[in-house]
Amino acid sequence: MLDMGSGYMALQNLYSEYSACLDDGDFEKWPEFFLDECEYRIQPRENYERKLPLSILWFESKGMMKDRVYGIRETLYHDPYYQRHIVSAPRVTAADGDEICSEANYVVLRTKRDELSEVFSVGRYIDVVRNTADGLKFKSRLCIFDSELIRNSIIYPI
Amino acid sequence: MLDMGSGYMALQNLYSEYSACLDDGDFEKWPEFFLDECEYRIQPRENYERKLPLSILWFESKGMMKDRVYGIRETLYHDPYYQRHIVSAPRVTAADGDEICSEANYVVLRTKRDELSEVFSVGRYIDVVRNTADGLKFKSRLCIFDSELIRNSIIYPI
Amino acid sequence: MLDMGSGYMALQNLYSEYSACLDDGDFEKWPEFFLDECEYRIQPRENYERKLPLSILWFESKGMMKDRVYGIRETLYHDPYYQRHIVSAPRVTAADGDEICSEANYVVLRTKRDELSEVFSVGRYIDVVRNTADGLKFKSRLCIFDSELIRNSIIYPI
Repeated sequence: MLDMGSGYMALQNLYSEYSACLDDGDFEKWPEFFLDECEYRIQPRENYERKLPLSILWFESKGMMKDRVYGIRETLYHDPYYQRHIVSAPRVTAADGDEICSEANYVVLRTKRDELSEVFSVGRYIDVVRNTADGLKFKSRLCIFDSELIRNSIIYPI
Repeated sequence: MLDMGSGYMALQNLYSEYSACLDDGDFEKWPEFFLDECEYRIQPRENYERKLPLSILWFESKGMMKDRVYGIRETLYHDPYYQRHIVSAPRVTAADGDEICSEANYVVLRTKRDELSEVFSVGRYIDVVRNTADGLKFKSRLCIFDSELIRNSIIYPI
Repeated sequence: MLDMGSGYMALQNLYSEYSACLDDGDFEKWPEFFLDECEYRIQPRENYERKLPLSILWFESKGMMKDRVYGIRETLYHDPYYQRHIVSAPRVTAADGDEICSEANYVVLRTKRDELSEVFSVGRYIDVVRNTADGLKFKSRLCIFDSELIRNSIIYPI
């Protein structure tokens, strides 16, 4: 998978499709980017670096992720907003058989109704990606963001 | 063109050259990225999704685009500003013969004289690209931006 | 090196590793991205375009860069902050034997303790890259930023 031809393009494509899914607000499809047994976490950089567990969101299975989507649609009271991901080229840090470790910087810009677009979350994805019969899937995606301060609560996945 | 080698690199290069042209303020070259019969539009996301026509800019030929450039140089009274495009990797959504459909997220940062750089426009390019004897050209480029609010008027192309 | 396969991927990788190094605050490794005889400059766009020499930082050897790192660690009094680079795909402008000229747009987002992430520096890298026995190294990297105004002084490399 480390060969810099089709393998890398597939990885880049996974990242691009993931961003497009969230920016389209197509949250029902979001868990399908992951293995059934998976991890998704949004955590401040300080806690991550000090190995402290506290996270904003922490899901340890696809089921928990589907619950979140249900929450977004049905139960979480919130003011809707648009997200727009700008994600750097993924950087492969390790590759072993069917598993790739990769990282990428991201900035998410948020637009609320009748407001200007603004920087919402800035950080780094730390990913483990598995090559499956259904294509590349995230085994884990950690969203490690730089600011401890957050503009209101994060409702949608990053 | 969907092969992930030289075809994709040519597409990436088209996107990069386009951004560099605008960020250099080299507006005379901007229409040359398009076919003679082409479409260029800057439109808010709400209108695009509801299929409402209202757009900030809407050009339906290369001639209209050249008129705009003339306007920028000669007739539009405005305070000059720098643009800086950061554009995600293009995502090919369809490819058929000599035509590619692709999309990419963008953020344009604007810098006015004696001011800090700021987020100016955030959105998505929706493109149709044609492979011609002169290389890849845009048949259409839609700039669908997330915010209905705009910091002053948009003078330069996105 | 202009072939759009492994050569371009190596260039992309150099850019990604460089960003990751700085965003991790791993400044000791930063000079190792450069040749011994090298140039590193952070300069406002106006001065660059008018060929005026005034720069924010200007180092003309790897030794001067190491001095800077020492300064960051030991002598420069400053409030620490996180950087996060988002860099566009590099655009190769020339390639000749073992040397590549390339450019890329960047935005650096800064996060200070207990503050929101904000746009810090926006501009363009103008690079000359040499293919060496140790892989690709910068012969020169110019960081040409769009705003003459800077949010406080720049302490860390861009």
